Amino acid sequence: MRHATDYLTFETPSRRDYVNITPDVEDFVRRSGVREGLVLVSPMHITAAVYVNDDEAGLIQDLDDWLEGLAPHAPTDRYRHNNGEDNADAHLKRQLLAHQVVLPITEGRLDLGPWEQVFYAEFDGRRRKRVVLKAIGD
Amino acid sequence: MRHATDYLTFETPSRRDYVNITPDVEDFVRRSGVREGLVLVSPMHITAAVYVNDDEAGLIQDLDDWLEGLAPHAPTDRYRHNNGEDNADAHLKRQLLAHQVVLPITEGRLDLGPWEQVFYAEFDGRRRKRVVLKAIGD
Amino acid sequence: MRHATDYLTFETPSRRDYVNITPDVEDFVRRSGVREGLVLVSPMHITAAVYVNDDEAGLIQDLDDWLEGLAPHAPTDRYRHNNGEDNADAHLKRQLLAHQVVLPITEGRLDLGPWEQVFYAEFDGRRRKRVVLKAIGD
Repeated sequence: MRHATDYLTFETPSRRDYVNITPDVEDFVRRSGVREGLVLVSPMHITAAVYVNDDEAGLIQDLDDWLEGLAPHAPTDRYRHNNGEDNADAHLKRQLLAHQVVLPITEGRLDLGPWEQVFYAEFDGRRRKRVVLKAIGD
Repeated sequence: MRHATDYLTFETPSRRDYVNITPDVEDFVRRSGVREGLVLVSPMHITAAVYVNDDEAGLIQDLDDWLEGLAPHAPTDRYRHNNGEDNADAHLKRQLLAHQVVLPITEGRLDLGPWEQVFYAEFDGRRRKRVVLKAIGD
Repeated sequence: MRHATDYLTFETPSRRDYVNITPDVEDFVRRSGVREGLVLVSPMHITAAVYVNDDEAGLIQDLDDWLEGLAPHAPTDRYRHNNGEDNADAHLKRQLLAHQVVLPITEGRLDLGPWEQVFYAEFDGRRRKRVVLKAIGD
C-alpha cells in the first residue's frame, strides 16, 4: 500500500473567497505515487470548506449570495457564538458545502468528470489556514 | 491491496429525478473482491448528487420540495450563471445533498444500517451523466 | 494493509442532541493499529449525522436553531413522509450536515486541526442508534 500526506496553506485577503485548488490536488496525486486509490481533501479549520463544482465566475457569485442568504453574516449578534467572535455564519456556511471531499485516483490521475473542479472556500479569511491532503492506495 | 473502479450511466427523462442505486453499488462491491474497505460513490457531473436516505415515496417528495424551496429553479434570471444556461439551481441543490458518499465494506458486503439506501439525485436531467464507483481495501 | 471496524451506540434522552465523539474516534484509531490511512465515521441511521465543527455551547445552539429554521419539525403534517411518522425534518436536517465524515490518520493519530471536533448529531432520538467506524491504511 502507498500513502502520502501534504498540507496546503491559505491566507485569503477577504473574509470570503473561493480558490480553485484542482492543480494543487493533481500535483499532489502525481507526487504521491498512488496509481489506484482515494484522496481526501479536507480543511483543518472549521470556518472553511472544500467542495467540487464549476469554475464559472457567475456561479461562484450565485453560490456566495446563496450561502449568505441561508446563513447571513449580519447582524452578528443574532448568533450566541458571537461573544467576542463574529464568525458564527462561517461555521454554518461550511456545513452547507459539506466541508470536505474524497476523490478517486485512477491510473495515477484524479478521476474527475469534465467540469469537476476542486475549490477551497474561505468564510473567515485574513488569517492562516490549512487543508490536509491524504492519498492511500496502490 | 485490492481496488476496483466502475461507472454507472444515467439519462433521466425529467429534469429532477431520484434513483435508488443500492443494488448497483452492492453488485459492484461483490464483483470488486474487496472484503474489508471503503467504496466511494460520486457523481462526475456537478448538477447531480449521490446521497443516503430513506426509499419512501413521501419523503422523496418532501426532499424535492425542500430542495426547491432552498434553491429554486425559477425565475432562472435570478442567477448570474444562467447566461445561456438555466441550471444554476442544480449546482446549488447538489451542494445541499453533500454530493457524494463513502460507504464501508465489511465481510465483502456494504455495511449499511437497516434503512440506509443509496440514491442518485439528478437536478439537470435529460442528458447523459456518470457516477464513479471506486473501492479499495483488502 | 490494515483495517478495523467498530460501532458506537447512542440512545439520546431528547429528540435532538449533539454529542462530542472525538475521544471515541481517537481511541478507535489507536486500537486499529493503522498508522497512515483514512477513517470513515458514518451514522447507520438516516435521521442522524456525523459532522466536524467547534465544541462551543453557543455555536451548538446556533447550529440547532439554524437547522430548525431551514428544516422545521412542526407542523409535522407539512411533510408527506409524516404518515404515522413525525420525523421527516430529521431526514432533511441530517442532509444539511452532510451526514458523514472521513478523517485522515497520520503517524497513528487523527490528523485534525486545532479546533476540529467530531460530533454525533441526533435528530430523532430516544431510540437506539449506531455509528460505524471503519479505518483502512498501513
